[in-house]
Amino acid sequence: MAEILRVGVAGLGTVGASVVRLLLRQAQALAARTGREIVVTAVSARDKGKDRGVDLAGAAFYDDPIALAAADGIDLFVELIGGSEGPARVSVETALAKGKSVVTANKALLSAHGSALAELAESRHVALAFEASVAGGIPIVKTLREGLAGNSIERVYGILNGTCNYILSRMEAERLSFEECLKEAQRLGYAEADPTFDIGGFDSAHKLSILASLAFGARIAPEAVEIEGIERVTLADIDAAGELGFRIKLLGVAQRTAQGIEQRVHPTMVRKTTAIAQVMGVTNAVTIDADAVHELTLVGPGAGGDATASAVVADIADIAKGVRSAPFGLPSASLRKLERAPAALHEGGYYIRLAVPDVPGAFAAIATAMAERKISLESIMQHGARAARRSGAAQVGTQVGVILITHATTERLVREALDAIYADGVIAEPAQVIRIERE
Amino acid sequence: MAEILRVGVAGLGTVGASVVRLLLRQAQALAARTGREIVVTAVSARDKGKDRGVDLAGAAFYDDPIALAAADGIDLFVELIGGSEGPARVSVETALAKGKSVVTANKALLSAHGSALAELAESRHVALAFEASVAGGIPIVKTLREGLAGNSIERVYGILNGTCNYILSRMEAERLSFEECLKEAQRLGYAEADPTFDIGGFDSAHKLSILASLAFGARIAPEAVEIEGIERVTLADIDAAGELGFRIKLLGVAQRTAQGIEQRVHPTMVRKTTAIAQVMGVTNAVTIDADAVHELTLVGPGAGGDATASAVVADIADIAKGVRSAPFGLPSASLRKLERAPAALHEGGYYIRLAVPDVPGAFAAIATAMAERKISLESIMQHGARAARRSGAAQVGTQVGVILITHATTERLVREALDAIYADGVIAEPAQVIRIERE
Repeated sequence: MAEILRVGVAGLGTVGASVVRLLLRQAQALAARTGREIVVTAVSARDKGKDRGVDLAGAAFYDDPIALAAADGIDLFVELIGGSEGPARVSVETALAKGKSVVTANKALLSAHGSALAELAESRHVALAFEASVAGGIPIVKTLREGLAGNSIERVYGILNGTCNYILSRMEAERLSFEECLKEAQRLGYAEADPTFDIGGFDSAHKLSILASLAFGARIAPEAVEIEGIERVTLADIDAAGELGFRIKLLGVAQRTAQGIEQRVHPTMVRKTTAIAQVMGVTNAVTIDADAVHELTLVGPGAGGDATASAVVADIADIAKGVRSAPFGLPSASLRKLERAPAALHEGGYYIRLAVPDVPGAFAAIATAMAERKISLESIMQHGARAARRSGAAQVGTQVGVILITHATTERLVREALDAIYADGVIAEPAQVIRIERE
Repeated sequence: MAEILRVGVAGLGTVGASVVRLLLRQAQALAARTGREIVVTAVSARDKGKDRGVDLAGAAFYDDPIALAAADGIDLFVELIGGSEGPARVSVETALAKGKSVVTANKALLSAHGSALAELAESRHVALAFEASVAGGIPIVKTLREGLAGNSIERVYGILNGTCNYILSRMEAERLSFEECLKEAQRLGYAEADPTFDIGGFDSAHKLSILASLAFGARIAPEAVEIEGIERVTLADIDAAGELGFRIKLLGVAQRTAQGIEQRVHPTMVRKTTAIAQVMGVTNAVTIDADAVHELTLVGPGAGGDATASAVVADIADIAKGVRSAPFGLPSASLRKLERAPAALHEGGYYIRLAVPDVPGAFAAIATAMAERKISLESIMQHGARAARRSGAAQVGTQVGVILITHATTERLVREALDAIYADGVIAEPAQVIRIERE
């Protein structure tokens, strides 16, 4: 058997402790699979004394993760600190510069500096692996980088944030408001005290930018992700979606178009019959459309100590076997600058919910604004007084909810039509607009 | 860039032609990803002159695949001939013995001789890769072998045969009999003229035996797979399943139990709410239960030239990069003999449909036979005259269909209870018994 692989783990929170536990529990199987004994020889954490339920007696302790990253006693550095800057970034850079392979679960770091870190890793002929950074235990990075190597990928999209999917699932199942479900998610530990990062779509955007780089052979471009969170989704929308055969999911979508690459995170209407629509609760799912394999969907846990550790350990095992893929599939020098498709040119169907005064001509004005821009309608549904009351939708005076489902059109035309409708002065509230993702 | 990887492709049917096409179409990307140019330098097929829509001008032609396997002009042999013996087996053995890596989509060959071939490959330090042999384009082999390396796997199960899933989906959707749906599948090319291999469960069994080896670190044991096909599934069963919240799928299930490893292929009741129940038509799906990742499901195309070729090309790309995993994850010497769990000790719930004469005491006899064996019932449903007529179930005299759903019990007790019921003489037809797969 080859030399021992000496692993240093920085960050001993839930995931870090699980990584140490899995490496011990699977030590024999991993040695047989990889041909090397894998041993955690050093760790770093904020609180040395804390009981984490794992045996760290044999491991050297470092207060400073950067010192751990530079230590001679490790061959592989596992970064589980978090954050795109500070100790996480400096320690990863230090380890790579010292010629040590790095495994990280840090999507914020990858999204901000992934392309530069990949260059550094390649220049030192070491691995930079990050399966755990996207969709927790789902092997989506490996699938995109290796499993679909023979494909040209058209689109990759998915449910990348368990908190948001939990909230949307609960709103539908329990008929509760967004605020009520958010509070419940916080109570259960599925959402942070400050939930902005999750519900605002920023966490999904980090992950999406990594997937887009892998899928399209482009440098990571987080600034090119359009981001919209789930805060504005109401029970009225969820009801209307259900009646029309849709479900609302927060999706991250990266798509190749004639205008460039679209990267967008937003509440999305998906047909109930699709695999992605079936995914409820904190579960994640990713679907890939590619020329040869057509459609592939992976469903699994997007978070949790053991599930995330499963991905970290798989990366460690690949490195132990000597696998040295370019971090993003293609060598960094071959990664193109991501050509951003203008958001206004997005093509697709739209769900539009309008609060329309119950006066003659109000609906004609809407229909005219749509027709003038050649937006054709797949369906029109009036969400009457009873439905509106049941779902708690705003209902001022004699307004009625009107829901339009458009055929494929462009974002620009939809926005122009709405501006024309607003200019008429008959519609007081801004419309709820939700994109429909094609199957 | 390293030396060219010279590929020989034996078998130019739908999959073979797709492999050649993908390698040409993705030539540049594959060279960038793997660091080597990948070129098909030789092919073998039955009919040299046939137009396959791909450019083979630069490739040497061999009438004999075994001669191709032995040829000096190739580094990697791709076997797409099919069959567990004959030219497929001999050519793969020849290539491995000559120190060439092999990629194959041949589940029959792998199931029969996979462990021995893996030994041969390891002894020559070459790769034996077979992603395409199970579930077509779904990267399930890579996921089990690499993506879940840190896990101990409890169960792997799935829809492994598109023909059967198509027929069961159509029976439910169109309310047609098994025979009608089979004819339709044959007309559409989803089923062979002799469909036994698919609908009898044998194709699923081959694939399951490969998955079980990967999941449990055991030598392939096809003889230990319990096999039951879908021929006996009736519309009455599909109806009753639907009313009770289930759907019927032909599953292959490999499961670790206290008694050993269960490997079984049979029609199975799955709860409609599960991911696997949503998979309709020719699509395949595999779910893995493992200690760290909990549950992971992969859904995608199980057949088709391009989808299968996608898997073949991914294997070729890994080999081009120099990845040399043991074919079944663990080195052959470490693979245990698969310890077969006795079928009679299978534990789980059961669906039992009985044609019961409408006479006093008939039902009491059934209930007593169950109670005496401590089989407790989750639900009892009488499928009345109207339901029976609608679904075309046999209805002799004044018989009624009675459906029992048991709580978890053992196969042995269910069989004993049924024997007791038959011995009473009140039940004329044999019961329909379908296992319920737990979530």
